[in-house]
Amino acid sequence: MALEIERKFLLRNDSWKVGAQGVAYRQGYLSLDPQRTVRVRIAGDRGFLTVKGATRGCVRSEYEYPIPLEQARQLLDELCHRPQIEKTRYRVPHAGLVWEIDEFHGANEGLVLAEVELDRPDQPVVLPDWVGEEVTGDERYYNACLSRTPFSSWPQRRG
Amino acid sequence: MALEIERKFLLRNDSWKVGAQGVAYRQGYLSLDPQRTVRVRIAGDRGFLTVKGATRGCVRSEYEYPIPLEQARQLLDELCHRPQIEKTRYRVPHAGLVWEIDEFHGANEGLVLAEVELDRPDQPVVLPDWVGEEVTGDERYYNACLSRTPFSSWPQRRG
Repeated sequence: MALEIERKFLLRNDSWKVGAQGVAYRQGYLSLDPQRTVRVRIAGDRGFLTVKGATRGCVRSEYEYPIPLEQARQLLDELCHRPQIEKTRYRVPHAGLVWEIDEFHGANEGLVLAEVELDRPDQPVVLPDWVGEEVTGDERYYNACLSRTPFSSWPQRRG
Repeated sequence: MALEIERKFLLRNDSWKVGAQGVAYRQGYLSLDPQRTVRVRIAGDRGFLTVKGATRGCVRSEYEYPIPLEQARQLLDELCHRPQIEKTRYRVPHAGLVWEIDEFHGANEGLVLAEVELDRPDQPVVLPDWVGEEVTGDERYYNACLSRTPFSSWPQRRG
């Protein structure tokens, strides 16, 4: 098991995007239960099956297994809940850390989120100036929640 | 993906057990949804993560991935639903097919089930004389259901 320690932010502007190369992500869920989420993901041309435990603060247990791309596609097409998440992920280095910025599509079009993975919860983070409000604890921004209750259905959009 | 084509039976007696060697199984579920079951299993000293789709007749889609034993143990201990399934599995060859016979323990103590895996649904099967009533379509005998509603809680036990 790995521990996923992650902080999540809204974006202030799109200046991060200069020169950034995106990878297409598609993901769906076999379990949306926040105590035991099971996610199928296609990242570019690679497939993954990932189990995550409950989030405590910004920490979550994570078990990730590579699976054949074709099986990931079948699991998404035939077994996963709908709607599914489609997004483009950009990796942007800043001050010694790599930020992952997700531009959502489909039912979550218009939402952009920046995440940074840490080694420990209290690790100091130099925030880039394109980062806005922190939404780490806000369940609405969990990808599993965005699959069930997409951004386009929110009464007040802030993404 | 594999297709799991399987018929399931109660046992008439325990004459199958002569000389049979059992392997300890422990399994639990991350998703009990019959449309998308996600199972963690320890079989002897091997760990597996398995996704199964809805059962149609005796046919079900199945995706099985070996995972490290220690991770299977952590997933069972920390993330899977309870109660979990404990059983001893015996493999008994008969008339060109291998029967898998599960003796359940814990909350399902007293239940014994025989399964035979087939290449196609209409494949002829020579039934051993220790096999009793067929329960292939009976959801109560699904392992995911036995985890939620164990045999010891049934009003009328027939296992």
